[in-house]
Amino acid sequence: MTNTWLITNVRPHAGPRADGCVDVSIAAGRIAAIGPNLPREPGVTVEDGAGALLLPGFVEGHTHLDKTLWGMDWYRNEVGPKLTDRIENERRYRAESGHDAGAQSLALARAFLQAGTTRLRTHVDIDTDAGLRYLDGVLATRDALRDVLDMQIVAFPQSGVLRRPGTDALLARALQAGADVLGALDPALIDGDPVASLNLSFELAQRYDKPIDIHLHEPGELGAFTLGLLLDRVEALGMQGRVVVSHAFCLGALPEPARDALLERLADLRVALLTTAPSSTPVPPLKACLQRGVTLFGGNDGIRDTWTPYGSPDMLERAMLIAMRYGLRRDDDLALAFDCVSSVAAHACGFSEYGLHQGARADLVLVAADTLAHALVARPPRKLVVAHGRIVARDGVCVEDLIEH
Amino acid sequence: MTNTWLITNVRPHAGPRADGCVDVSIAAGRIAAIGPNLPREPGVTVEDGAGALLLPGFVEGHTHLDKTLWGMDWYRNEVGPKLTDRIENERRYRAESGHDAGAQSLALARAFLQAGTTRLRTHVDIDTDAGLRYLDGVLATRDALRDVLDMQIVAFPQSGVLRRPGTDALLARALQAGADVLGALDPALIDGDPVASLNLSFELAQRYDKPIDIHLHEPGELGAFTLGLLLDRVEALGMQGRVVVSHAFCLGALPEPARDALLERLADLRVALLTTAPSSTPVPPLKACLQRGVTLFGGNDGIRDTWTPYGSPDMLERAMLIAMRYGLRRDDDLALAFDCVSSVAAHACGFSEYGLHQGARADLVLVAADTLAHALVARPPRKLVVAHGRIVARDGVCVEDLIEH
Repeated sequence: MTNTWLITNVRPHAGPRADGCVDVSIAAGRIAAIGPNLPREPGVTVEDGAGALLLPGFVEGHTHLDKTLWGMDWYRNEVGPKLTDRIENERRYRAESGHDAGAQSLALARAFLQAGTTRLRTHVDIDTDAGLRYLDGVLATRDALRDVLDMQIVAFPQSGVLRRPGTDALLARALQAGADVLGALDPALIDGDPVASLNLSFELAQRYDKPIDIHLHEPGELGAFTLGLLLDRVEALGMQGRVVVSHAFCLGALPEPARDALLERLADLRVALLTTAPSSTPVPPLKACLQRGVTLFGGNDGIRDTWTPYGSPDMLERAMLIAMRYGLRRDDDLALAFDCVSSVAAHACGFSEYGLHQGARADLVLVAADTLAHALVARPPRKLVVAHGRIVARDGVCVEDLIEH
Repeated sequence: MTNTWLITNVRPHAGPRADGCVDVSIAAGRIAAIGPNLPREPGVTVEDGAGALLLPGFVEGHTHLDKTLWGMDWYRNEVGPKLTDRIENERRYRAESGHDAGAQSLALARAFLQAGTTRLRTHVDIDTDAGLRYLDGVLATRDALRDVLDMQIVAFPQSGVLRRPGTDALLARALQAGADVLGALDPALIDGDPVASLNLSFELAQRYDKPIDIHLHEPGELGAFTLGLLLDRVEALGMQGRVVVSHAFCLGALPEPARDALLERLADLRVALLTTAPSSTPVPPLKACLQRGVTLFGGNDGIRDTWTPYGSPDMLERAMLIAMRYGLRRDDDLALAFDCVSSVAAHACGFSEYGLHQGARADLVLVAADTLAHALVARPPRKLVVAHGRIVARDGVCVEDLIEH
């Protein structure tokens, strides 16, 4: 499938049905041409799109492939309500159960591909109990799927970086071993010392010249305080455009003047926000972010793990949940939710050559749906998924030789 | 299928897998027996449940069958943001498009059955433009499915009852024509006169001896005020146990003392609350309701209509959204969300003979899932749906002769 081939008769998502169908020519893993009635050279393989909607491959902006129990027997969640309950429970479960981060991350990554996701950012736990074991598993998955799935790995200190001495050295090793991004977690509420925690994270990121993606669950005014400290460091150290703040619940619960002051700094410093759009927690305001030029993109967080029974490798479902969370109903508004798991997420994470234009990487999804909004709410199995120019799934099922090629 | 038959090898939802399997004997539309190793009389039809999870038929507590565009071409939503925009847009659309409430309600009701819902409460628009036209359509659907689907119809003044003179007379006719429940809508914000609006509704309900189900979207303190007026009338007129307040957003946004005072009155007067668990709006507090004995149950609201692109006839999805909205993660907590679309909804609406015990109506759903929580988040097509003792769907598809029998 690295030679030239053609998908005919598809409707790019931006246009209504009346716009008519186009063809897509694919060569060497890229979109060679896109437009109506492309020439059909003799001998070239042709896939008939049959009028399906054409979407760019989806982008998962924040998940935890190493934790998932996807495809395993059901895990009965009896965990306490606090963040620390969940952290302790998971560390214990993984130590005792022999949970295999390699096999599990591969199973979930394949499910992502099957549903149309061709780029993803995953956080991977690094801690002093497990060392780099989970990272090794996820690196193996990334390697196995390297031809079809663009995977960014965040070295994530799930148990904090200050509380457990030696974690910083492990994070350094993880960055040297192939992690792309330095993770961090609640500098005040988990590490107990926001200044020292942030200083350590920024020092590490600078030393290894890596971007940062920090989990910030801290609520209200405390979260705003920590976020302010973080933005000071982005500015002082010149890390504009290289930092993501995941969750940022605080921005959903501040008085508007305080919130808007932070949004302005986020826009100026090109710090992006990631939301899973949880329905039970305040979330950063989508439309205020758009108005002020703050990048807000979407992801699942964990999928069926010891933390949560929820989540799905189908990013159309996440887009629907984002749309519902922000009270969006109009078709043009639902398109904003889809942007969060496609173009905006690609931009925020730095996935390059993204989109449906000539020269972009040929990451394509065909869905039998009338419009984009219809695709989000109906979510039929994907008719065809193309990753880097190769067909990886058909009618909702991965092709068998996904890894071997 | 009115004779005795047997389902073997199923796991009732309350028990873990280790509890082992049971059989269910069905006779004359009821559960004749349920337990391990029931005797297999010669000649009796046996369905092998193959270890599937056994759930009671689901209950949809609040939908609008008459409005749906289910199965039609996608409706491009370009509607303004206000409640009145949506009301006006819909009335115009329905007048101009020839939307067929009979055919559409039948299509959606079949989809409900297919996914395991065997009882539902639907609101049907009654207004001075359309008269009883939508009601006639839904009554025809109820009649067509009477052997398999228990349908309660609420005569619902979508455009208000005071604003458009003659609406009250139409509601009276609807109650005489077969509607089971009197509906109402925002006495202050739509009708503009909460006392006069509520007095009119209660007078009508009393005259025709019908329960009330009122849409109360009014927020915060205004909603609390209207709710107080409503509770006064329930008490004064002896309508305890016969009133449902749908949505009740106000209870999600009041200071706790004011909220709890209302919850106590709701419990005392046995007034139930219906939530769709919207993620962008405050909702009545589930656990506080449980603690205080307030009945809180669940429903979709409209499904793919001119109001909303969302909604699904799969009540397991609604249960999941309810669980997510209330931040539930533990298996025992997810069971509370399932209660909202099963036993608690049946109790609140007054659907009788409900459950998995001997003598209950044989409304049964078989799902290939490890546990109830797994069923909520995975939602595989239903292996078998039994309504009133008859198989109505198999492997996610309605049996063909659903209506004829």
